[in-house]
Amino acid sequence: VEEAHVTSIPWNTPDPGALKSRIPTPALLIDLEAMEHNLARMADFFRHQTSRLRPHFKTHKCPILAHKQIQAGAIGITCAKLSEAEVLVETGISSLLIANQVVDPAKIARLAQLASQCQLIVAVDDAANLRQISEITSRLGSVIEVVIEIDVGLGRSGVQPGEAALPLAQLASGLPGVHFAGLLGYEGHTVFEIDLERRRQNVESAMTGLVKTADLLRQAGLRVEIVSAGGTGTAFLTGAYPGVTEVEAGSYIFMDAKYHKLGLPFRRALTLLATVVSVPHSRRAIIDAGMKSLTTDNGLPEIVSPANLRLLRLSEEHGTLEVDPTQSPIHVGDRVELVPSHVCTTVNLHDQYIVMRGEVVEDVWPISARGKAY
Amino acid sequence: VEEAHVTSIPWNTPDPGALKSRIPTPALLIDLEAMEHNLARMADFFRHQTSRLRPHFKTHKCPILAHKQIQAGAIGITCAKLSEAEVLVETGISSLLIANQVVDPAKIARLAQLASQCQLIVAVDDAANLRQISEITSRLGSVIEVVIEIDVGLGRSGVQPGEAALPLAQLASGLPGVHFAGLLGYEGHTVFEIDLERRRQNVESAMTGLVKTADLLRQAGLRVEIVSAGGTGTAFLTGAYPGVTEVEAGSYIFMDAKYHKLGLPFRRALTLLATVVSVPHSRRAIIDAGMKSLTTDNGLPEIVSPANLRLLRLSEEHGTLEVDPTQSPIHVGDRVELVPSHVCTTVNLHDQYIVMRGEVVEDVWPISARGKAY
Repeated sequence: VEEAHVTSIPWNTPDPGALKSRIPTPALLIDLEAMEHNLARMADFFRHQTSRLRPHFKTHKCPILAHKQIQAGAIGITCAKLSEAEVLVETGISSLLIANQVVDPAKIARLAQLASQCQLIVAVDDAANLRQISEITSRLGSVIEVVIEIDVGLGRSGVQPGEAALPLAQLASGLPGVHFAGLLGYEGHTVFEIDLERRRQNVESAMTGLVKTADLLRQAGLRVEIVSAGGTGTAFLTGAYPGVTEVEAGSYIFMDAKYHKLGLPFRRALTLLATVVSVPHSRRAIIDAGMKSLTTDNGLPEIVSPANLRLLRLSEEHGTLEVDPTQSPIHVGDRVELVPSHVCTTVNLHDQYIVMRGEVVEDVWPISARGKAY
Repeated sequence: VEEAHVTSIPWNTPDPGALKSRIPTPALLIDLEAMEHNLARMADFFRHQTSRLRPHFKTHKCPILAHKQIQAGAIGITCAKLSEAEVLVETGISSLLIANQVVDPAKIARLAQLASQCQLIVAVDDAANLRQISEITSRLGSVIEVVIEIDVGLGRSGVQPGEAALPLAQLASGLPGVHFAGLLGYEGHTVFEIDLERRRQNVESAMTGLVKTADLLRQAGLRVEIVSAGGTGTAFLTGAYPGVTEVEAGSYIFMDAKYHKLGLPFRRALTLLATVVSVPHSRRAIIDAGMKSLTTDNGLPEIVSPANLRLLRLSEEHGTLEVDPTQSPIHVGDRVELVPSHVCTTVNLHDQYIVMRGEVVEDVWPISARGKAY
């Protein structure tokens, strides 16, 4: 069923040149200067490594940003879901890693179609799923690259490091319609570790298991081209670990209140602009942004301006702020700017980025893959 | 800027008649039978009251459901934001309460335009905001009804019960372009109170303040037509309180894991269908639904089937389940159905409802106001 619907640009989309003070709120703002710094800083790191960057699309869900990452040197894009990969291929991204399992036969058929349009790599950790992928892709005449997911300590999906990966890798090597490409790990259990030395040790331990598994497969005669791992908190460690070929970091492009605590050389480039809609008394202000504009799964967002406010709580449609009465008073209509505590889940609530150069709107970019969770 | 864009129905939209087992996941399912029970049960209550139901749109964000609520006897719809109201008026809803302040001049101008197409009521709690609304609506030649928001104990926006509302009500009565219509309260601090007697006492105390304020305004010669309050947890108490004219309950249409604990006579009518994508070992299963499909602000969702599973945590793209190994084993590809812990924030992540009559897809309804937070 492919019927055409006509939609129009929503009125909360400001024109280029508009001032920040005139943007309808709540609005998600990109600070272009900070974002460009982040892109350049990460690209600079990988210029001096043998590993390469394949940034995660789940953070920004915006093809315009994916292309900027490719222009800055990324070898391709990582994404979480088939529906995200389809959005990316439509915009001309030519190398894609879906860092999760795709198990539904109808989805695998779409995966096979997609693989005829780009280099497509998908994660597997189950023999039956692998056989089904092979069956469907070979029937449809395409080839999908597969990486075996290894549980490097996160305790989620994936096979254990070591021998467990061998039969699956051998199966992948022998089946039609699939090409065994390597291994995928994600040390998500330590990406937020504040203590750098402990983070380094955890990465060391996780990557030792992953790279040893790759070596073990090579000893069994298999060719392991891809060893993918890493997040924003571990990119400089994992990206420098010998044997890791590519890094899947995503949040570095925007950062957020939680990652900011790690002291990484990236700037906070994404904020939520809100408006004060009520000042019930001198010590309280209510803004028009709640949990439908900002997420709380990594704690409360942080207020960046004005300075005399503290966010107490978010409800569905409101944020409740404490006002410091020794500072200048706050009024209905004042603007409040917040840094999300978790950019990835916050971005998924919004349809567009308002792209700011200082106080002026430079552009508006659609978050084309918002809601693409399938 | 109103350029036309062409979009198409996404492939994860099943055809009517499809079986539940073939729905692409994650998918948000309405159990029609349970939902129809909820609509009828609430309508039945209000048939015996002097107060009326004006259900809250923020829960379902779906005009098809708003029209079903009107057909079942609701006098109009409550919504949270101007952008939601616009979606509703486009589909022919003729009486609307925006239960929050609208403060931006550009938004107020849109509000004034909207007021020429329907009965439009908006909340105010600030004299400067009220004057600005009057100035803009009278310039544009329309009239907006205003209700004064009273803080009945939630501690968010609104003026305190009693004398504080009088100058604002008098101002509203005297200004052009606005019509003073009454009062709005929301006893959100007690809607989830498990203990019925305590909930009853809290409602009594909140509604006493609200209704006494209405009486005080009447004694000052003002006409108070609307006294609006209530949520799903308090609808039967608030709706029966003398002097309350309308109730804003929303969640009753679907219920959720949190409201279910109150023992209300409504059924859980909304579930999230997911697929097992990984079974790393016999006691763990991973599903394809995480925090981009389900929210956690009211705690973890609950699994309704199969029975041998327990949700341990949600990450962005995954749910991690504990499998009871004494029951039948779980396999990659198995379906898992969950009840959201908070329907309102969960619905806001999705673009469509898959409408089920038993195990068969009857229809698909767009969540047209998803993301309409402005």
